[in-house]
Amino acid sequence: MKRFEDRQWCDSMRLRVDYNNMMREFAGQHGISEDAFSARKAQYDAAACRMEEKRSTMKWRALPFQQKEVVQEIQETAAWVRANCDAFVVLGIGGSALGPIAVQQALSHLRYNELPTEKRGGPKLYVEDNVDPERMASLRDVIDPARTIFNVITKSGSTSETMSQLLWATALLKESVGEAWRDHIIATTDAEKGNLIKIAKENALRTFYVPDGVGGRFSELCPVGLLAAAVCGIDIEELLAGAAYMDGLCSEHDVLKNPAYMLAALEVLAMEQGCNISVLMPYADSLRFMSDWYAQLWAESLGKRYALDGSEIHAGQTPVKALGVTDQHSQVQLYTEGPFDKVITFLGVDRYRTEVVIPHAYDHISDVAFLSGHTFNALIQAEQLATEYAVLKSGHLSKTITLPEVNAFTLGELICLFELQTAFAGELLGIDAFNQPGVEEGKKATYALLGKPGYEQKKAELAARPARNARYQI
Amino acid sequence: MKRFEDRQWCDSMRLRVDYNNMMREFAGQHGISEDAFSARKAQYDAAACRMEEKRSTMKWRALPFQQKEVVQEIQETAAWVRANCDAFVVLGIGGSALGPIAVQQALSHLRYNELPTEKRGGPKLYVEDNVDPERMASLRDVIDPARTIFNVITKSGSTSETMSQLLWATALLKESVGEAWRDHIIATTDAEKGNLIKIAKENALRTFYVPDGVGGRFSELCPVGLLAAAVCGIDIEELLAGAAYMDGLCSEHDVLKNPAYMLAALEVLAMEQGCNISVLMPYADSLRFMSDWYAQLWAESLGKRYALDGSEIHAGQTPVKALGVTDQHSQVQLYTEGPFDKVITFLGVDRYRTEVVIPHAYDHISDVAFLSGHTFNALIQAEQLATEYAVLKSGHLSKTITLPEVNAFTLGELICLFELQTAFAGELLGIDAFNQPGVEEGKKATYALLGKPGYEQKKAELAARPARNARYQI
Repeated sequence: MKRFEDRQWCDSMRLRVDYNNMMREFAGQHGISEDAFSARKAQYDAAACRMEEKRSTMKWRALPFQQKEVVQEIQETAAWVRANCDAFVVLGIGGSALGPIAVQQALSHLRYNELPTEKRGGPKLYVEDNVDPERMASLRDVIDPARTIFNVITKSGSTSETMSQLLWATALLKESVGEAWRDHIIATTDAEKGNLIKIAKENALRTFYVPDGVGGRFSELCPVGLLAAAVCGIDIEELLAGAAYMDGLCSEHDVLKNPAYMLAALEVLAMEQGCNISVLMPYADSLRFMSDWYAQLWAESLGKRYALDGSEIHAGQTPVKALGVTDQHSQVQLYTEGPFDKVITFLGVDRYRTEVVIPHAYDHISDVAFLSGHTFNALIQAEQLATEYAVLKSGHLSKTITLPEVNAFTLGELICLFELQTAFAGELLGIDAFNQPGVEEGKKATYALLGKPGYEQKKAELAARPARNARYQI
Repeated sequence: MKRFEDRQWCDSMRLRVDYNNMMREFAGQHGISEDAFSARKAQYDAAACRMEEKRSTMKWRALPFQQKEVVQEIQETAAWVRANCDAFVVLGIGGSALGPIAVQQALSHLRYNELPTEKRGGPKLYVEDNVDPERMASLRDVIDPARTIFNVITKSGSTSETMSQLLWATALLKESVGEAWRDHIIATTDAEKGNLIKIAKENALRTFYVPDGVGGRFSELCPVGLLAAAVCGIDIEELLAGAAYMDGLCSEHDVLKNPAYMLAALEVLAMEQGCNISVLMPYADSLRFMSDWYAQLWAESLGKRYALDGSEIHAGQTPVKALGVTDQHSQVQLYTEGPFDKVITFLGVDRYRTEVVIPHAYDHISDVAFLSGHTFNALIQAEQLATEYAVLKSGHLSKTITLPEVNAFTLGELICLFELQTAFAGELLGIDAFNQPGVEEGKKATYALLGKPGYEQKKAELAARPARNARYQI
């Protein structure tokens, strides 16, 4: 029996949410009052009903439950890659990159790529989510194409960045391995539509599908994220089981008992009180890139000009990535003394995966000696507690999500928790949390600048821009 | 003659600031009006006068000019380290870490640590700015202590994180190399005060000094940052020359001609219009960690509860780190459609250090083929332009700083530019930009929790906290 099939073990891995420090009772005048909550009860109930009604349309919610077959296929492919390759390069951007990066950082050795092959047990992982020419060239300097698999990920097959990289990788492979280039590319894309599936079919590339209705930032738990994770030796079944477990906890109708709904309700109340900034501050290097993944999820889902009713609202709360304890020496001065414009979400860990003692060495210097004998574990946890206390004492708002351990199960919980928090926040704000109309303008302008057929009008629009005023240049 | 001794070359490397897209003339109703500027003229002049008066008290401003001897000493030490070591580990946090990380990312190969030794030409660089036990253990897995130098950096010698790491490194070295452990530690600290200088003297450690009056976040251009840079083969004389050049440009009294003052004036005007968020978005992987360095500088300097006149103001603008083009697929939806609460500063580059062509491969698919034949250079620059355009068109504010190239000289310029921008913003806000009283509370609470002598009262205060309300836990 796998451990996640044991309900008792699952319950022992349940994430905990503590929002005492959001509430007026503890945080003082800027805190949220009980009354504010009660006044919204009907709104929360209605939103919870809509979440239930819309469940079948939120295809990403089905991912933890309906992928038995594809998981097996992924595991087989991953086993082959692990045995035969030195490098696994994800070519993708946004949701195709941030999830794979976050999960690998959380669950692999913290310096995975630097380990000797035998310790790593699989290929190095590179996630190339930029088109900087220097970065492309530097990748070329550290991989052997003949021992590399490129996993090209774009649902639409029209992402300029990723398709450019595919062109680059294709040419590189042809040069290195000739006709065998096709064996070095795995496509992850829509099953029917777009250029990538066309290319994949024409060249008989190994292919995984992004399920219909699963958008980029909600795609970590489909092949987009699962293949890279499995290639790194991560237990993707456990990851999905953790998400399924959290989905169960968050199917509770009552916001007071539903961690995702409560987190969303708190953020939205805080937004209404002027907190337009949402800081995510994990106290674990393993979780640091969860902040990047969360930043896309929260920003792209809630940053919307129009409400569903067509009114212009310019909604959105800006996510900020921080890392404990590191950013205590960078951001906490602002968090404690600055404006009352942010909610800080601490991510804590009960049990780190190792214990390291702070040894004795300079016992005659009492200002240093008091540290000796403690563990780094105790130090980081004391600092988290101390920072929570300092933020509270300064009257600023925070809440804490605690993982009993960082493992595939708890990470699956966390991913599902944030996804559901985001979807529920969208309901409360009355917006469409699943589209991204605001990125179209930039895409079109890029097409026009690069001379893509059909964008002649946009090109003319760009050419007709008023000249820059030299007075505003130094 | 070194190239930075040629004024013409320096001028060809001058950073350019363009703030057209901040102004009402271009950005529309949320833009800054000419009148707002004119109305502040006297304030700007007064602040510029104070900057001149205070120049001698801002000791960090002297760094580009007064370090001939120490630079030579650093270069000698660096040459020895480069010849004799496999790893150079910085033990430091905040200003002792963010500068070294940013400079190395900007000026070394983008995958420096992964290069074979002969290509790298020097040791691997690790900057350990957290006390996560998993991270400490993972460092142990990839270094050979007998071939490693630890550079412990803390001006005060009382930074718990860094001193804990020193204890750990000391024990590790004693175990590995016995009495020779002293040859593997370089201390960078205050010349007179604190525990680290005491330990350094007792053990005859090689030592560099943090000059008097140079605070953590303004210390990159002293031995704190210069040693790690030199160890990575970076031309630190050129770095300092670039800073000196920018200091010259920013000695201009008139805000309209002074890039640092203008950047500060724009941010402060925007803050007054409700922009409490400052995004820094470089379009270059090499510059991505400049955003982390800037985030500390801006947050810790301006995030202040009290003004110099004693009034309670809770000042501060929250820095946000973004990366172009990557975050176009994560944050730009929010930037274009969300609230009018942010200023975006784009960092562009005229000439990347390499050119990579997007090759032909699928010419029969026109939606992909239009990319072929362009360079990644053209692609990333078109995307920057397109994003600037989309942000402008949506009525949001942005400005652009352009580096002709990324090299030690232009990076020195950029560091100096942001430092002076920050100092001038402090003047405009009427705050002390050089202290950080808000981090004391958390430090004291950590000391209390770890049982440091003298913190019994704080311990009692913590113990007396009201119990958490179980209702606010899920």
